[in-house]
Amino acid sequence: MRQPLEGVKVLDFSRVLAGPYCATLLADMGAEVIKIERPKYGDDSRHFGPFQNKESAYFELFNRGKKSIALNLKDDRDLEIVEQLVREADIIVENFRPGVMKKLGLDYEKMKAVNPRIIYTSISGFGQYGPYSQRPAYDLVAQAMGGMTSITGHPNDPPTRVGSSLGDMSGALYGAFGSMVALYHRERTGEGQHVDVAMMDTIFSMLETNVLRYTISGENPGRIGSRHPISTPFDIYQAKDGYIVIAVANDSLFKRLCETIGREDLITDPRFITDPLRTKHEKELKGILEKYLADYTVEEAEEMIGIKAGIPCSKIYTIQDVVADEHSRIREMVFEVEHPRAGKMTMVGNPVKLSKTPPQVKKVAPALDEHREEIMEHLNKSVGSVEYGL
Amino acid sequence: MRQPLEGVKVLDFSRVLAGPYCATLLADMGAEVIKIERPKYGDDSRHFGPFQNKESAYFELFNRGKKSIALNLKDDRDLEIVEQLVREADIIVENFRPGVMKKLGLDYEKMKAVNPRIIYTSISGFGQYGPYSQRPAYDLVAQAMGGMTSITGHPNDPPTRVGSSLGDMSGALYGAFGSMVALYHRERTGEGQHVDVAMMDTIFSMLETNVLRYTISGENPGRIGSRHPISTPFDIYQAKDGYIVIAVANDSLFKRLCETIGREDLITDPRFITDPLRTKHEKELKGILEKYLADYTVEEAEEMIGIKAGIPCSKIYTIQDVVADEHSRIREMVFEVEHPRAGKMTMVGNPVKLSKTPPQVKKVAPALDEHREEIMEHLNKSVGSVEYGL
Repeated sequence: MRQPLEGVKVLDFSRVLAGPYCATLLADMGAEVIKIERPKYGDDSRHFGPFQNKESAYFELFNRGKKSIALNLKDDRDLEIVEQLVREADIIVENFRPGVMKKLGLDYEKMKAVNPRIIYTSISGFGQYGPYSQRPAYDLVAQAMGGMTSITGHPNDPPTRVGSSLGDMSGALYGAFGSMVALYHRERTGEGQHVDVAMMDTIFSMLETNVLRYTISGENPGRIGSRHPISTPFDIYQAKDGYIVIAVANDSLFKRLCETIGREDLITDPRFITDPLRTKHEKELKGILEKYLADYTVEEAEEMIGIKAGIPCSKIYTIQDVVADEHSRIREMVFEVEHPRAGKMTMVGNPVKLSKTPPQVKKVAPALDEHREEIMEHLNKSVGSVEYGL
Repeated sequence: MRQPLEGVKVLDFSRVLAGPYCATLLADMGAEVIKIERPKYGDDSRHFGPFQNKESAYFELFNRGKKSIALNLKDDRDLEIVEQLVREADIIVENFRPGVMKKLGLDYEKMKAVNPRIIYTSISGFGQYGPYSQRPAYDLVAQAMGGMTSITGHPNDPPTRVGSSLGDMSGALYGAFGSMVALYHRERTGEGQHVDVAMMDTIFSMLETNVLRYTISGENPGRIGSRHPISTPFDIYQAKDGYIVIAVANDSLFKRLCETIGREDLITDPRFITDPLRTKHEKELKGILEKYLADYTVEEAEEMIGIKAGIPCSKIYTIQDVVADEHSRIREMVFEVEHPRAGKMTMVGNPVKLSKTPPQVKKVAPALDEHREEIMEHLNKSVGSVEYGL
């Protein structure tokens, strides 16, 4: 079966997370991704835990299906190899701080001169232009400066980081989307371009209407825990042995919830007859629900409210729960792969399920410099035979 | 200037958030998006706040640059119009619960029979297959079942929803990426397909190495507030008048931090000489840093640590801060648009900055059924002249 990105060549100069995940999203779809790594040390994340038989699972997750060649980007002979690779490439992915690739002589302008059709995707903390462009960023900073941290957490607690590196992940995703848009554009026009994605911007774009709630009312959205800003009951509730989410955003679901918990009286209770009124009396309603839930385990409550009554409701899945979950297994979001050095490894799938060309995820990441011979042999053969133009 | 998706026709059957945002990402890149809405009422989100002069800013944000036609999907005459639109379309976006489009006779199999080249992008809570497929989902449930809620928040607090609708936003993003991959595949092979994205899967895929930390160690990752799981000092710290983030993930940054705060003694302190040791003595280090920060305002601390010393460090931007921020303005992540009915509105940009074909975001959303005449006129003209094939 032909893969959607079969024949598309990606040069991955990136390290750690946002860039590597962007390139992995392309590799899953069939692109040939050549990862260019620092000699001896490789991508920093090769040295990040968790480890399995000395192999970094961190590196594994974000570099599956890639090829690796170790090149010294400050060495002229190695830079010649890079130039040859760029001539044949379709997409470059890099996530250095803006200016680093320029210092190496590998910025978009230079690469465009080598290959005018190249698509050059840069993912950075703050982007290629703008006053913060040169500031150093980690995910924590991108989440904080993008506004997400200020609205995550409980009202009387400090602002809270999202539990995963959302700035990197969203940077990777917008970067992959942008790369595909640019590739499609090039397919039709022959024109390459520079794709500039800033983690701070991607966090900001994920805030959805929080931004407009402020710009229209002048009120700065604060932290509201797990509540919905305008709908109630829509929160995390305490049951007998843990927490459960219930998400009711309209009158008919509220009616069904009241019937399910045997409290039909609440349907016509003047405090709760509309969503705005329920939101106004949120504390009372939460009290009533938690008093009810105190008699039921999370499992019992989910069965009654979520499964039988069909109200959006579930337990809070731990990582262990999702990994063991049948749904995740069937949808190949969790699977095992046989790694030549680490042994059997559990891996995370690609959520884009394409009916005719499903993502190819059961691949392992390369050892450092593993594909040197193959890559060099190909270059030696193709030198002089590279063609340009449409 | 030619837009990358110029000439690409998208039919948007979706409502509220994940589907509409997915289609907006395509509209920003130049696709012609026709939104098919319920007569009289339209997309539910037309009735969601915040409102400006009675216009929903919620609807505005996720439907800019689209055309609108009101059609009754249970009426045979209107379904004929849908069929004509499908003949000419490249991509369908829908976010009904699986099965709803089938009941309406508008599922992928049917649409494929009408237009074999169609790309049909479905975004749902749990996907088109798998045991949870029919369960109802809101974002809160997708976040909880995808595992994100369990790892967001402070150790002694309840699990916490991410402050925005991350399940919808990530569903939209993977959906837009998948649509582009499918479109590129079709450009080269003529083959359309069904793109199936589940919000629960997308949340799970955003967990990054949290999953592997569990599968390798058997330890279930819990909530660690805003800390980094393996690096220290990497957290939110209390300064004199508020909170600040400091993100130090290696020895050289730690050295620079110690010098900046005049505590060179800490560099060789046996408790802090390596990152694992700093993480082991995280509480003591936090105490030392917060004792120091107690004498400085957030602004002073950011200036010293973040700007002058170049350590990843910043204040926690509120929504107000980011909206007013010069960097966000210069990168067009925030801008004003003149709305014909609502007046001047502040809007959120698209973070994919394409150098040759920048996203076109300064457009407004349509009034309900606004483009009926234009769409019908076009259909009447093109009936009988539609061409198929590559």
